[in-house]
Amino acid sequence: MAVYTHVPAEEIDAFLTRYDAGRLVSAKGIAEGVENSNYLLETTGADGAGQSGSHRYILTLYEKRVDEADLPFFMDLLDHLGARGCLVPRFIADREGNRLQQLGGRPACLIEFLTGISVTEPTPDQARAAGAALGELHKAAEGFAGKRRNALDLAGWHDLAAKCGDDFDVIAPGLKARVAQELSYLDVHWPGDLARSVIHADLFPDNVLMLGDAVTGLIDFYFSCTDIRAYDLAVTHSAWCFSNDGATFFADRAAAMGAGYAATHGLTDAERAAFPILCRGAALRFLLTRAYDWINTPADALVTRKDPLAFQRRLDFYASADPAVLLGA
Amino acid sequence: MAVYTHVPAEEIDAFLTRYDAGRLVSAKGIAEGVENSNYLLETTGADGAGQSGSHRYILTLYEKRVDEADLPFFMDLLDHLGARGCLVPRFIADREGNRLQQLGGRPACLIEFLTGISVTEPTPDQARAAGAALGELHKAAEGFAGKRRNALDLAGWHDLAAKCGDDFDVIAPGLKARVAQELSYLDVHWPGDLARSVIHADLFPDNVLMLGDAVTGLIDFYFSCTDIRAYDLAVTHSAWCFSNDGATFFADRAAAMGAGYAATHGLTDAERAAFPILCRGAALRFLLTRAYDWINTPADALVTRKDPLAFQRRLDFYASADPAVLLGA
Repeated sequence: MAVYTHVPAEEIDAFLTRYDAGRLVSAKGIAEGVENSNYLLETTGADGAGQSGSHRYILTLYEKRVDEADLPFFMDLLDHLGARGCLVPRFIADREGNRLQQLGGRPACLIEFLTGISVTEPTPDQARAAGAALGELHKAAEGFAGKRRNALDLAGWHDLAAKCGDDFDVIAPGLKARVAQELSYLDVHWPGDLARSVIHADLFPDNVLMLGDAVTGLIDFYFSCTDIRAYDLAVTHSAWCFSNDGATFFADRAAAMGAGYAATHGLTDAERAAFPILCRGAALRFLLTRAYDWINTPADALVTRKDPLAFQRRLDFYASADPAVLLGA
Repeated sequence: MAVYTHVPAEEIDAFLTRYDAGRLVSAKGIAEGVENSNYLLETTGADGAGQSGSHRYILTLYEKRVDEADLPFFMDLLDHLGARGCLVPRFIADREGNRLQQLGGRPACLIEFLTGISVTEPTPDQARAAGAALGELHKAAEGFAGKRRNALDLAGWHDLAAKCGDDFDVIAPGLKARVAQELSYLDVHWPGDLARSVIHADLFPDNVLMLGDAVTGLIDFYFSCTDIRAYDLAVTHSAWCFSNDGATFFADRAAAMGAGYAATHGLTDAERAAFPILCRGAALRFLLTRAYDWINTPADALVTRKDPLAFQRRLDFYASADPAVLLGA
């Protein structure tokens, strides 16, 4: 968590003059996400009245992990979702209608600020609300014309596993064989006929803003893509329904999440039947990206490395669990 | 710039229940300073009315560089200064009157949030305002009973230089001899009879919040201590009146800063006569701490190392400049 690109406050103030956003009164680099540099801005507002605190924005500078060519997809998606009532942060256009700018030598966007906090230990009611918000997102995404390939699909998992190679076993003996075995299984069993749509693909508690049990925002759509829709629920399930280390599955959170999703969208019988394997894929996806980052991040770096084995434990659970417990009765 | 101690939002919300501050509606880890972990909080306010954005606080967790035993000095100082009209962030007491808490295994304080941005390239008018604010701070500090030794005084500079030893010359050939020569000069010429008071001791542009040409806050008092009062102006001078790399002295900023300080406090003839040597001390102090950090920070760490030579250049300037240009005519 760090600000990678430092932008002088004077430059941010000058940048804001392109928008109807007022003058800068506060700018704080925030430790949000690991992909980009983010600033929380406060301005006087378009009317310049200077109601302190009433006008806040996120300024995002895109570092190398986000491809500038993907930004129009994300912008159009959030416009589409926002127009249909989803609580998502919209990209703000300047007076000439531009949403994509350059600042500090980086692609940069001004984005709506949303209140809410990210929970660390979700209650079942909070998991229910997250499931319901995901269902609403899937409903709102219907009719969205944009498409983006999921770089982290089954083919992408194979690529990542090949890059990790023998280093898997530095993380844990036997991990390379376990990953190879799972990839072989998924090659045979991964469903090819389920409904596809735009998905968030990374709806961890970090990316859901809440006040109490109510969702106030879904954020960080930079992994959103076109893929199996029910896979999005599997990702969310793997993120919300376990202890952080993956050692404990919380059936109450999972049942509540399933009920929340059913209340706003729901799964077909085919999606329900495939859900255990979708969850195995979700767990493998995060196992692989965490393993890759683990291998490629110096141990003494200031970024915290996330434990890949926390998702191997989830994978092992999904591979052996009674399918009936995954989403409740 | 990083958040060193991560505190779950649920714990911050629970922490806030000790205060008349309302419930948490937003918490962002901010990249402020290098000494502590800081969060920018937003709450519903004591009345729970939830006026979005109207209630903001800084939550600071003290990492190892700040000694917990020094916190009461800083708290009492900011109370004293705030009560006398200085725009400083006050420490907030909980319902039982406690200002110092524990959170995430660290000493922690809730602190007033102040608006304003830190300039990177001060104009002369902004340098004038900073000088005036420093003079007001020195006036307001009169009568403050607290005392704190400056660990970075002449004796401390000798200690730091000894710790750097031969590593100085890894930074730049000849630097060790240059530092030794300067220390010998200061041992003979450092003034012993100037007025002492509480000083900020680190009033870089980073630590001054401004809106346009007006100062809205002086922050980061964690180096404040008891020392020669005019040395505080010398530190501020070295921080504000040069290009970042120290290669260019801006006489217009310096003259404006001197005029600003004179308007609210002013220097005696003895302080004015000693000012060049106080500036040499200030430049050496930052040269030394930057050199020490340079030597002890891995080159690939995510914290940005600040160039010690930017202050050697200031030192060289102060050692050879016509004293008349330092604060204008």
